[in-house]
Amino acid sequence: MNQQQLLKASVNGLKHFTNVNDVENIQSLIDTALTFKQNPNHSKIGSGKRLGLIFLNPSLRTRLSTQIAAENLGMQPIIFNVGSEGWQWEFAEGAIMNGTTIEHIKDAAPILGNYFDVLAIRTFPGLKNREEDYAEMIFNQFVKYVNKPVVSLESATVHPLQSLADCITLHELTKNETKKIKVVLTWAPHIKPIPQCVANSFSQWMNAWNMETSKFDFVITHPKYYELDEQFTKGATITQNQNEALENADFLYVKNWSRYHNYGTFDTGKQKWMLTKSKLAAHTKVMHCLPVRRNIELSDEILDSNHSLVTHQAANRVWSAQAVLHEILK
Amino acid sequence: MNQQQLLKASVNGLKHFTNVNDVENIQSLIDTALTFKQNPNHSKIGSGKRLGLIFLNPSLRTRLSTQIAAENLGMQPIIFNVGSEGWQWEFAEGAIMNGTTIEHIKDAAPILGNYFDVLAIRTFPGLKNREEDYAEMIFNQFVKYVNKPVVSLESATVHPLQSLADCITLHELTKNETKKIKVVLTWAPHIKPIPQCVANSFSQWMNAWNMETSKFDFVITHPKYYELDEQFTKGATITQNQNEALENADFLYVKNWSRYHNYGTFDTGKQKWMLTKSKLAAHTKVMHCLPVRRNIELSDEILDSNHSLVTHQAANRVWSAQAVLHEILK
Amino acid sequence: MNQQQLLKASVNGLKHFTNVNDVENIQSLIDTALTFKQNPNHSKIGSGKRLGLIFLNPSLRTRLSTQIAAENLGMQPIIFNVGSEGWQWEFAEGAIMNGTTIEHIKDAAPILGNYFDVLAIRTFPGLKNREEDYAEMIFNQFVKYVNKPVVSLESATVHPLQSLADCITLHELTKNETKKIKVVLTWAPHIKPIPQCVANSFSQWMNAWNMETSKFDFVITHPKYYELDEQFTKGATITQNQNEALENADFLYVKNWSRYHNYGTFDTGKQKWMLTKSKLAAHTKVMHCLPVRRNIELSDEILDSNHSLVTHQAANRVWSAQAVLHEILK
Repeated sequence: MNQQQLLKASVNGLKHFTNVNDVENIQSLIDTALTFKQNPNHSKIGSGKRLGLIFLNPSLRTRLSTQIAAENLGMQPIIFNVGSEGWQWEFAEGAIMNGTTIEHIKDAAPILGNYFDVLAIRTFPGLKNREEDYAEMIFNQFVKYVNKPVVSLESATVHPLQSLADCITLHELTKNETKKIKVVLTWAPHIKPIPQCVANSFSQWMNAWNMETSKFDFVITHPKYYELDEQFTKGATITQNQNEALENADFLYVKNWSRYHNYGTFDTGKQKWMLTKSKLAAHTKVMHCLPVRRNIELSDEILDSNHSLVTHQAANRVWSAQAVLHEILK
Repeated sequence: MNQQQLLKASVNGLKHFTNVNDVENIQSLIDTALTFKQNPNHSKIGSGKRLGLIFLNPSLRTRLSTQIAAENLGMQPIIFNVGSEGWQWEFAEGAIMNGTTIEHIKDAAPILGNYFDVLAIRTFPGLKNREEDYAEMIFNQFVKYVNKPVVSLESATVHPLQSLADCITLHELTKNETKKIKVVLTWAPHIKPIPQCVANSFSQWMNAWNMETSKFDFVITHPKYYELDEQFTKGATITQNQNEALENADFLYVKNWSRYHNYGTFDTGKQKWMLTKSKLAAHTKVMHCLPVRRNIELSDEILDSNHSLVTHQAANRVWSAQAVLHEILK
Repeated sequence: MNQQQLLKASVNGLKHFTNVNDVENIQSLIDTALTFKQNPNHSKIGSGKRLGLIFLNPSLRTRLSTQIAAENLGMQPIIFNVGSEGWQWEFAEGAIMNGTTIEHIKDAAPILGNYFDVLAIRTFPGLKNREEDYAEMIFNQFVKYVNKPVVSLESATVHPLQSLADCITLHELTKNETKKIKVVLTWAPHIKPIPQCVANSFSQWMNAWNMETSKFDFVITHPKYYELDEQFTKGATITQNQNEALENADFLYVKNWSRYHNYGTFDTGKQKWMLTKSKLAAHTKVMHCLPVRRNIELSDEILDSNHSLVTHQAANRVWSAQAVLHEILK
């Protein structure tokens, strides 16, 4: 099968890309991404189309990789940083706007939908109100009022472009492997409360991809009280014993998150959860979505060694975004 | 007449686009804009040219629509946010620069004129010194020192790209109408002092366009002490009785502004001036330039109904900017 | 020799562009820049390549001129303002990242190197720790970890794109001159401590270029205690007597800097060092890199007269950047 055939055969397009449930077949999306990694410019399907990249929160990799992916497809990306270039948006239905919010999402989003062919938005959770965050109130209002295909650049609960890049990375390193691969998501310390997005999303993608492939033994380990929402973790083995979880692990995904129950809280004094080299086997590969707090979440000795896959993962963000935009445009 | 002929016949080009007085024939500029709405890519007159978009103040629609308009014409737009990307500019002639301003407009503007083929700038009024604001001190110094065609992205007293989009919208909805159309600019409450720009500019364009077409009965209504500068309103009927003004109105343009006399002041307690649905006839259409303070200036029930033209207006911003850039480049 | 031949003959390419020592032959680089000034679009060597422009500090001319230079070469520039679009970077080796820095340069830079073909970065000195600043700790770590060609957009100690533009300007105005040209770098007052970069860099380039051409009598004048680092000034005549230095000067480069010895300090009360018209001969030309504090460093009467070359210099920034990018890409 040549590249053009592979692209056509891959998946039946995407309406939105908001979480793994929008994806018909993960393996096929990974394969599409890898055709772009081999040949970044083989499709100009985005020619004459505009992508609006709307940031309610800061970004490095996500912004740059998605911008590059769009350009590779011949698409014109336009960045808009709502905070530094615009003004604060209101999201509450029926709000009497006598405060600091200047424009309602109900007014801003339809215009963006009019100006762009595809929209992408980043919005972090407030970590105050779990109902609101887990209903993806902001993200879903954007989707509702923008009335165009929407790509998540990370939302209150998930970060699917990151998770797809993570799956691409795992696939590249395990595609010729016949034995079961052990992948462990291991909680790490931090200095402040951090969203559950990346952990939720990685769990959700690993479980869904494993349903297709049955290639992985997927384990999640975290301290007591740091349970994630079951909708994302169902299918994984969960343990509070990090040593046990790490045994014979092939891949470790290191990530901090704040509590889902007792929402948004965290505590200090969990330094023993930091991943250090002594916890690794010689062949163990270590993943992290970046940015990483060095010597808090993960030690220098790992990040500076060839245990680390973090640059490999980040490089795959381009192909992740390019596959997604391609499926949306086709 | 085909599109190419229409474009050539339209207007004799523009030197600058700073207010309605730069425009020879408004109707013709509207017609040019509508050829672009029909076919956004029919002219690549901007090919090989660069547009500098300089923001001293934040923007959403103006920034995005002008950027898109330039790209439609094959022109390369470059955005520069002076506040977040650069440093504060000085505008006072003879200033001894020992304070917080880091570069004089007399030094920055000529360089911008050297780097770009066309410049566009947004600068809001300070609302402290009426003489300075109404002399368009900042905007005019930019025009003077940049020595290239300049497009206003909103200045201290007017917002002509918005007004042109508003006229385009009115034209689309009334072009087959033979009876006189009643258009009312109606003052709305706000929570803080707001420039007079949009109100000035809409009045100025309506009066000038009406000189050409005699199609409109144009009325302005506002509370006592909120009189606008006569140079913009001359030609309109002005009343402080909102009920009377709204009678038989076909289009309502809702907008807050602070006082021109007793400059930049405003007061609270004017909630009865908020536009609500009970004040509308069944056929009345409601306009606003956005961003709008919902349930302060205008009620949700209007904005969420098909009385509202706000998205239609904002969508026309692209064609407004594209017509203007086209006339400047030709 | 036609343009294509001139370009090929110019210099043997550049690996990085971090200071004058990266340049094999200054005159040849100036000549390359001037071929672009004559014909901005004669090379599309950057086609299909991406330039990442990373700003840790604000910019006007450097940002715009480098972006335009890249586009002239067919290269895609992407701007990233670390402060307003991203988060704070850590540069200390072995840092335990429990503070306000969110990502280590060791993690961010390799990704940027993966996403881009050429990187350019601006980073100002802290003016607190001379060892660190003069070791170019931040800039050099970027170069080390990014693993791609790097262009300095101004670093802790030098500003080579500015100095190249200054040499281009001097060359244009003196190329037919047979007598020795007197160029004076004259210290000017300021209201706060300013980096030594531009003064260091101009000195370094003038001395190196003079080694090639022997065309200049290069003099530096400054108040007591404002000596620059000798590695940059060696070859120049240095005096604390401004009057004597200015005698018979053909070109004056006006610039403030804070102390190198007693690092980063400055003092007030040096108003007599401000350059005023009475200090100039009729033919003297005055240069400044901009932004300039008017009537503190340099008087209005000079900047507004045709003694001033500041716009000419700034315009040459495009050709300076274009020559450098061309040599890096070839």
